[in-house]
Amino acid sequence: MSRIAYVNGRYTPHSEACVHVEDRGYQFSDGVYEVCEIRDGHLIDETRHLVRLERSLDELRIARPMTRAALKCVLREVLRRNRVRDGIVYLQVTRGVSRRDHIFPPTHVTPAVVVTARSLDPSRSSKAAEQGISVITLPDNRWDRVDIKAVSLLPNVLAKQAAKEAGAKEAWFVDADGYVTEGASTNAWIVTPDGELVTRPAEQGILRGVTRTTLIDVLEKKGLRFVERPFTVEEAKKAREAFITAATQITMPVVRIDDTMVADGKPGPVTQALRAVFHDVAERLPI
Amino acid sequence: MSRIAYVNGRYTPHSEACVHVEDRGYQFSDGVYEVCEIRDGHLIDETRHLVRLERSLDELRIARPMTRAALKCVLREVLRRNRVRDGIVYLQVTRGVSRRDHIFPPTHVTPAVVVTARSLDPSRSSKAAEQGISVITLPDNRWDRVDIKAVSLLPNVLAKQAAKEAGAKEAWFVDADGYVTEGASTNAWIVTPDGELVTRPAEQGILRGVTRTTLIDVLEKKGLRFVERPFTVEEAKKAREAFITAATQITMPVVRIDDTMVADGKPGPVTQALRAVFHDVAERLPI
Repeated sequence: MSRIAYVNGRYTPHSEACVHVEDRGYQFSDGVYEVCEIRDGHLIDETRHLVRLERSLDELRIARPMTRAALKCVLREVLRRNRVRDGIVYLQVTRGVSRRDHIFPPTHVTPAVVVTARSLDPSRSSKAAEQGISVITLPDNRWDRVDIKAVSLLPNVLAKQAAKEAGAKEAWFVDADGYVTEGASTNAWIVTPDGELVTRPAEQGILRGVTRTTLIDVLEKKGLRFVERPFTVEEAKKAREAFITAATQITMPVVRIDDTMVADGKPGPVTQALRAVFHDVAERLPI
Repeated sequence: MSRIAYVNGRYTPHSEACVHVEDRGYQFSDGVYEVCEIRDGHLIDETRHLVRLERSLDELRIARPMTRAALKCVLREVLRRNRVRDGIVYLQVTRGVSRRDHIFPPTHVTPAVVVTARSLDPSRSSKAAEQGISVITLPDNRWDRVDIKAVSLLPNVLAKQAAKEAGAKEAWFVDADGYVTEGASTNAWIVTPDGELVTRPAEQGILRGVTRTTLIDVLEKKGLRFVERPFTVEEAKKAREAFITAATQITMPVVRIDDTMVADGKPGPVTQALRAVFHDVAERLPI
């Protein structure tokens, strides 16, 4: 079965899914995106993803390309046409196609919308979670609006590649004061020696991860001790557990930070327990 | 006459010039670009633009898509097909098309190349230079590798739009210490009260502008006093002259910075004289 993508109103074979060279996403990274997990035929936390998309668009003053209800239909149609039961749906909205000029185009230019989907074997993520992953740490060299989920991801690309070349799966950005901000595509968490869960506040310097937000719901539901505050790399290395959150990663144990093993170098019980109950709390809407 | 673009080996009508939705330029701003001025049937400073392109590619470890000689042929073919005698040629190279994943794609993935060209009336820039332009100042909120001419231009887009909404043509970014770094798409210069030309060193925090480099050649040739050092917004407001440099802008007088008139609010003689002689010194290669 060949893959199908949605591009600006048309469902098209993935291999022919094209945007104009003067789409502002291509020339200016003037666009935003979301990645939503699909699990057992359901969209996970779709509402939060679409609310965040709308916030990103609003922050950049990109018009909403269609109603939320219409967008939900498009996501489902792409998922159905690709027969995705477990995997991801990717949604990108840019400021549209216009003759190259930094300033916003005339108001008659409409946003561009691309939706793709693909199947993923959920057991792969589960297997990775049994081993845990390594992360490296790097100075946070990004712009100051990383709270917007924009496609200006070049620093993230370079950080992920640096992680891969160091034998790791993720890079944690570290601010000038030595505090972890977030991963290149994930949020960062620790469990302190006395059992408290810690993640950085999402007011500034990080993206408010949807999985992060839902995990906070889980913590409240389960009555676990939790605080939003920054933590240093040193504190993370001495933590009882460390993990990352992201759609499809759920909670992924971090067992090594740079050259330091976290605790005994094995996935921790809190991380694993949260992973096991996450989807009981997350929003699950049928395709 | 319909415009023609070059896209990945093919010359195609501009309206049909498309790249795949999984081109990494579109999803990750994982690409670089150059804009070269065309004047009276000649490419201005083509060599420096192509040398800088190669540096940008090398810094991002994107393979060179073709030899410099081949690229020069493509630029000329696009210019000829679009009958451009005065205008610009735009060149973008990305890391190519690959299934979405932050890390670099497999080595068999080849870079994507797009070239477009368009005519511009050079008298428009001359007329603007007779009046001079206004600039606003904004905190520099970009990532720390702006020395790479990458398409991750979202901060620049927002700054240019802020300038436009303030009735200005350019935004000057200002670092944490109050020094001007550069414009959103130009380099920033002043002439001090005692007649010295000043621009920020290009070692860090700015892009090494080709027009900036060639203007330094002009200054040396004309024996003008010149120093590379940072200057503050306050110093610029009290300068004898201020101007910006960029391909197609050449030297463009700045007559207002935020709410402050520069000198008497008219283009200065040094800026105008440099503008007049610039193309006598710049490299001019025939199409």
